[in-house]
Amino acid sequence: MTTAATAASPGADGLPQRWLTDDEQRVWRAYLHATTLFDDHLDRQLQRDAGMPHVYYGLLVQLSQAPQRRKRMTELAIDAKITRSRLSHAVARLERSGWVRREECSSDKRGQNAVLTDEGFEVLRRAAPGHVEAVRQAMFDRLSPEQVGQLGEIMRIVAEGLQPQDSGADLPWLR
Amino acid sequence: MTTAATAASPGADGLPQRWLTDDEQRVWRAYLHATTLFDDHLDRQLQRDAGMPHVYYGLLVQLSQAPQRRKRMTELAIDAKITRSRLSHAVARLERSGWVRREECSSDKRGQNAVLTDEGFEVLRRAAPGHVEAVRQAMFDRLSPEQVGQLGEIMRIVAEGLQPQDSGADLPWLR
Repeated sequence: MTTAATAASPGADGLPQRWLTDDEQRVWRAYLHATTLFDDHLDRQLQRDAGMPHVYYGLLVQLSQAPQRRKRMTELAIDAKITRSRLSHAVARLERSGWVRREECSSDKRGQNAVLTDEGFEVLRRAAPGHVEAVRQAMFDRLSPEQVGQLGEIMRIVAEGLQPQDSGADLPWLR
Repeated sequence: MTTAATAASPGADGLPQRWLTDDEQRVWRAYLHATTLFDDHLDRQLQRDAGMPHVYYGLLVQLSQAPQRRKRMTELAIDAKITRSRLSHAVARLERSGWVRREECSSDKRGQNAVLTDEGFEVLRRAAPGHVEAVRQAMFDRLSPEQVGQLGEIMRIVAEGLQPQDSGADLPWLR
């Protein structure tokens, strides 16, 4: 989609700038192309087959795997790595579709749970095979077992770096 | 953000379903976490430092590297891997900011070019060091040279699979 390299040389502050090497630029471009195309592909597939974007589908999956198919909104935002406001908006939409409902949290008066409805579970059950097949075809069927392992390790490292433990970190679910 | 695996067993059509293995699920989850967090991180950084989201920045980069800092809209959509309508919207916004202008294409009456203005180039020049540093810190500084090579190859394979050559392919820039 884009590249981190430009034609300039020293940084705007006059300090020497650590630009990407040609090899790094190629990797970065491949990363942006693959992730942009994959996002688009899965959104199209799920919109067509289940009437929802990928991020909504992911929320239903999270709820389906939780005890009693319910989860606190705050935890759901952390799982999905999205902002609270984006989650609220998504859950409101899922509620209007009848796939999720909200309830007050019994242990904490200020908290709210999202609950997967039977109808939501049924939508997920019907959509899952086509979605898994799309993920398989685009990724796992095309990579060797070694590459799958490498990808997992690389993504684990990148994700870890983007979730620093210090309390001032600018993480989506804290917004 | 989500996972392609659910608790169900045979597919909705009754055929045996190729679910993800436990290892594949872990890799898929790591992929979704890393890419979702990285998207958020770069959008935040560029909104703060340059007043635009990552995809807009990417368009300015593409134009800055093109001859005479101009490119056909159709080519720009392919470079960015986005739909024509999303590109139109982005370029209209960039035009209002004074960073891009549109002109008729001299060789093709129906075509349009996007042109990077001097002001747009200046915005890019100021934003680039901070953006490259963010990409470095989140990805290249954290991976070994071997892992960078592996990531490039994996992403190349995935991107290639999502851009089939047949004419009926559902590619973003054809929409």
